[in-house]
Amino acid sequence: MALIVQKYGGTSVGSVERIEHVADKLIDWRKRGHDLVVVVSAMSGETNRLFELAHSISEHPVPRELDVLLSTGEQVTIALLSMALHKRGYDARSYTGSQVHILTDNAHNKARIREIDSQRIHADLKAGRIVVVAGFQGVDDEGNITTLGRGGSDTTAVALAAALKAEECQIYTDVDGVYTTDPRVVPQARRLDRITFEEMLEMASLGSKVLQIRAVEFAGKYNVPLRVLSSFEEGDGTLITYEEEGMEEALISGIAFNRDEAKLTVLGVPDQPGVAHKILGPVANANIEVDMIVQNIAEDASTDFTFTVHRNDYRKALSILEDIAKELGAREVIGDDQIVKISLVGVGMRSHAGIASTMFETLAREGINIRMISTSEIKVSVVVDEKYLELGVRALHEAFELDQAG
Amino acid sequence: MALIVQKYGGTSVGSVERIEHVADKLIDWRKRGHDLVVVVSAMSGETNRLFELAHSISEHPVPRELDVLLSTGEQVTIALLSMALHKRGYDARSYTGSQVHILTDNAHNKARIREIDSQRIHADLKAGRIVVVAGFQGVDDEGNITTLGRGGSDTTAVALAAALKAEECQIYTDVDGVYTTDPRVVPQARRLDRITFEEMLEMASLGSKVLQIRAVEFAGKYNVPLRVLSSFEEGDGTLITYEEEGMEEALISGIAFNRDEAKLTVLGVPDQPGVAHKILGPVANANIEVDMIVQNIAEDASTDFTFTVHRNDYRKALSILEDIAKELGAREVIGDDQIVKISLVGVGMRSHAGIASTMFETLAREGINIRMISTSEIKVSVVVDEKYLELGVRALHEAFELDQAG
Repeated sequence: MALIVQKYGGTSVGSVERIEHVADKLIDWRKRGHDLVVVVSAMSGETNRLFELAHSISEHPVPRELDVLLSTGEQVTIALLSMALHKRGYDARSYTGSQVHILTDNAHNKARIREIDSQRIHADLKAGRIVVVAGFQGVDDEGNITTLGRGGSDTTAVALAAALKAEECQIYTDVDGVYTTDPRVVPQARRLDRITFEEMLEMASLGSKVLQIRAVEFAGKYNVPLRVLSSFEEGDGTLITYEEEGMEEALISGIAFNRDEAKLTVLGVPDQPGVAHKILGPVANANIEVDMIVQNIAEDASTDFTFTVHRNDYRKALSILEDIAKELGAREVIGDDQIVKISLVGVGMRSHAGIASTMFETLAREGINIRMISTSEIKVSVVVDEKYLELGVRALHEAFELDQAG
Repeated sequence: MALIVQKYGGTSVGSVERIEHVADKLIDWRKRGHDLVVVVSAMSGETNRLFELAHSISEHPVPRELDVLLSTGEQVTIALLSMALHKRGYDARSYTGSQVHILTDNAHNKARIREIDSQRIHADLKAGRIVVVAGFQGVDDEGNITTLGRGGSDTTAVALAAALKAEECQIYTDVDGVYTTDPRVVPQARRLDRITFEEMLEMASLGSKVLQIRAVEFAGKYNVPLRVLSSFEEGDGTLITYEEEGMEEALISGIAFNRDEAKLTVLGVPDQPGVAHKILGPVANANIEVDMIVQNIAEDASTDFTFTVHRNDYRKALSILEDIAKELGAREVIGDDQIVKISLVGVGMRSHAGIASTMFETLAREGINIRMISTSEIKVSVVVDEKYLELGVRALHEAFELDQAG
């Protein structure tokens, strides 16, 4: 008998029928003797409907009121799910973020959880109740309703699991786990039984949209075992946890990729201290997020400075850079928005040399030219022309034998 | 410069356009220097939509969860109205019932307000903000969300006006005031400039569905001047207040009627102490509300006992009475569900004799047979056959010259 926190996303509670299905699943777990705390999102489509209502009134709805509005989405789901449980003869209680004191900072629309008062939930569990909590929302210390930003329900679930010292936090979604890469690109892609928090962070930030990245960070920080599994199919999903002694360690866990990248290069930048800041400062001020950054050694007292941004920000970044280039006396600004990033991720890299060279060799064999390289302790990323994405990912998946259990 | 509480019902906030219109109206009041607290209902149709969601899950949704669900309706409106005010450059803050501590008992779906913490609202008003409060909802002392039952937003507005010591509580609705009788029956019906709380209570309970009866009681109890007016047309509406010295007093304020009545009579009941309780006890236990009750003096040690119920409860009441009649040794149970009640209402009755006899004479002149009579200090009610409703109301409206200002 363990305490388990489960989270069901918008698609899993997208209709009355699906909510009934979730109720059935919960009762199965309950019958196996587990204590359950359930976090739910708004029914799919509901958050968009509310957004549209807000935007039909104001192009820039005031953030505090947007949170008051959006938080009703999850509130509807918790009530309906609790009703479905009661109908089946199980005692359940629903709580909004405010009711269980999911205390956040006051950054409306993107608040961060500070603290959760778990007393009330423990009392309900003791009384044999299933506790149903609205995801995505909290309350600041003045009692204002806050939301955690899109996908924030994952974070709510992990934060609750941490506060309640749950045995496991299970994220039910429409995929049945984390894969070695996107199965739409590589049909042989294999579901991973386990992955580490760090690997998951690299995978998530690189475009595997299974879990909200903040939720993974949170789970890692508080060491909450996190499991991704399907709410529609049976199966054990993928467990995200810390490396354990004796845990069978794959060299590479997966291949992530990102189609939404564009790269920009300032050529012939005078090689002076502070030049990186002079280039990236104005870009950051324009709220453009920078991903990879590469600067090569200087030749002839000048250097080339390259970075990637989201493709949507390409034009804006280009025009900012052209101004900066003039100021700095750089030679030229060039760019390309037809590129993609492919990354190998795996904690096994730490102890194994030669991963990067196998990667480069594999790509070369396929005639794929590498435009940029960047590495971290558990990741090697390359930028290649967009047209090579599928070819590159498939070749790497095969080269590292990811279709076979590690 | 006064503090005014305004309430806008579901029709008045039924679309984004209407919410924008309410925002414009509020700003007009604000420009005249008034402090404003605004109570809003759910957008029309929304409460029904939520009810249907609940009932598609359970025929009898658990009351606590129904309140969690339904309360989202008003929460959407407060957010949208606040956004519309911000867009117009006016500072506004929305609050759920729980956020301004509208403390109620724990009778879910029909809770009663116990207390309101007005501190936060006063602080906002002082800061120049328009305060927007969700109607219909509160919170019990354990933090559970409660609702006041349908139409409860009127009560929220009055309770806020009382707690804040507002100068006036204005209920904006789709009619422009309280009329001497239903204009659909008597085209000459006249809007009243003023009416007393007691008269309004009698009018409301008799079928003038302008205001929730509990809100009128509340306003009377705390002496909150209450004004009913249209959110679509200009005009001063009807002010509901206490009798004032020198207030021009009409003999009769209005004629109320109720089409939904049915009457039941137990004939030949042995005239013993406790017989009324023996008859009405089981009726009350079956949750049937009894309206008029008439018992005549006993003849030959037996009496006839008559009362009226809502027409929907007629069959059920009849079958209960048949059992009771046997137990009591009564002669027979008869009933009629083709009757209506017509009532004259007016505080002027207190000091003027002869109202009832003018009423009876008027009806007799039209050949209308009176089936039952019941009187109170400010009301005379008669039950007549349903077919005479329009004729009777029109004749009385003319006889008491209600089309002319009193």
